Amino acid sequence: MTLESGFPIIFETPVAWGEMDSMGHVNNIVYFRYFESARLAYFERVGFLDEMNRSGIGPILATTRCRFRKPLTYPDRIRVGATAHDLQEDRFTMLYCIESEALGAIAADGEGLIVAYDYNEKRKSPLPNNVRRAIVELEAG
Amino acid sequence: MTLESGFPIIFETPVAWGEMDSMGHVNNIVYFRYFESARLAYFERVGFLDEMNRSGIGPILATTRCRFRKPLTYPDRIRVGATAHDLQEDRFTMLYCIESEALGAIAADGEGLIVAYDYNEKRKSPLPNNVRRAIVELEAG
Amino acid sequence: MTLESGFPIIFETPVAWGEMDSMGHVNNIVYFRYFESARLAYFERVGFLDEMNRSGIGPILATTRCRFRKPLTYPDRIRVGATAHDLQEDRFTMLYCIESEALGAIAADGEGLIVAYDYNEKRKSPLPNNVRRAIVELEAG
Amino acid sequence: MTLESGFPIIFETPVAWGEMDSMGHVNNIVYFRYFESARLAYFERVGFLDEMNRSGIGPILATTRCRFRKPLTYPDRIRVGATAHDLQEDRFTMLYCIESEALGAIAADGEGLIVAYDYNEKRKSPLPNNVRRAIVELEAG
Repeated sequence: MTLESGFPIIFETPVAWGEMDSMGHVNNIVYFRYFESARLAYFERVGFLDEMNRSGIGPILATTRCRFRKPLTYPDRIRVGATAHDLQEDRFTMLYCIESEALGAIAADGEGLIVAYDYNEKRKSPLPNNVRRAIVELEAG
Repeated sequence: MTLESGFPIIFETPVAWGEMDSMGHVNNIVYFRYFESARLAYFERVGFLDEMNRSGIGPILATTRCRFRKPLTYPDRIRVGATAHDLQEDRFTMLYCIESEALGAIAADGEGLIVAYDYNEKRKSPLPNNVRRAIVELEAG
Repeated sequence: MTLESGFPIIFETPVAWGEMDSMGHVNNIVYFRYFESARLAYFERVGFLDEMNRSGIGPILATTRCRFRKPLTYPDRIRVGATAHDLQEDRFTMLYCIESEALGAIAADGEGLIVAYDYNEKRKSPLPNNVRRAIVELEAG
Repeated sequence: MTLESGFPIIFETPVAWGEMDSMGHVNNIVYFRYFESARLAYFERVGFLDEMNRSGIGPILATTRCRFRKPLTYPDRIRVGATAHDLQEDRFTMLYCIESEALGAIAADGEGLIVAYDYNEKRKSPLPNNVRRAIVELEAG
């Protein structure tokens, strides 16, 4: 399976030398930065950031998780796939996968639970309809 | 329940202004930095870092997870509890909890799976006996 | 000369293990995070953050500089001194100094040029009078 | 003048959403991460990293400086130029320039003083001859 077949959004970035810690590997927290960048690319594509600016209803990251499979090192270039999964009234799960060019392998996978939040009313909110439709459409391919 | 009663290691740090992202809250990846600092304090206490320097057998973080319960903001001071759990032949789970002074509440909890690894032989290893004993002793209080 | 005698604001923090890079020393960009934390403590003390919330006139960092004198490593605890210098109509220079407990020595010093900015009008601004007075008073001891 | 005409090494990267701080701009310390990535690309090109692995003589960053000219925001893509300057017996200055695609303008410039260091002997060292030659050649175009 290629990254393209399972993940409609793919974010690509070089690994920075300074992202390695004293073990000589990319530090664990940086994987979550990579996930975040893919998540934001996804949000941008389905109009969730525009929606937040317009109506005040935006995403909150409720939980997140990463499984480290192979250590990343500089120099490398990674591609991070993101896909939405288990779409519910007010939330969905985002799955991530990090592919290393240097390793020719998956370096990590993970997920995050995204909950819609009304930043004006300061409470949970249903997913805005246009965002939901855009997710369904994007995931349908 | 106080943090002290459930977590033998407590790491304390100020929240840095620069750890907030453009939503005005401490960015999600920083919670994993807080977890890491508590984990390292734990490793130091049970001699896992000394062991790694001596024998080449050290810890690897295999998976980690965080549940974000309340947003942290600057200025604040946090205490991060760490405790080892489910000690097995070659691995254990570390549980974390972040307590915010400003909120007077738990801001996040999480966990990580720690696996012993022989960095010389480049393969998994049983937990060194002295590290295991120190964990059991520390957790017994 | 002690840090106290030259710097009215002193920010204290533990060095995080994850702040070290693959050379085994605290990465260079982290020193600027330390400076930033001391700068924000200074701004807070002289009411510059309150002023920004009230009037929209706040600080901008125009340039900054660091001289690395001794490498920092985990574990350590540092104290970062900040003092304002060369106060002008719309700007001042902030001097920093990082003292390492483990080394018993100065690990780095640096400076930054702070310019007052009217975020509403989107242009440079004179330093608000109350902020100027608070700086003069704080520096007079 | 284009970036290409003045800087033999150009490092390109997307701006990450999480690099913005609570002012809604890329945080000041991240500019030094961008500089570092360009510096490492330069070191790699002139064989300074290979040299360090071989002989133990590598680079140390002694001082660095940044002038912030325009705030960067997500989404953007930047190109960071690096060039060596004022080559001396044991040191040289590296100049940096950050160009923003979204702004169509220079967002920041800066410099760093690089000193050769013998990590085995723990003292300053002359620049290795092969590194010096590679720098002269690269800069000659």
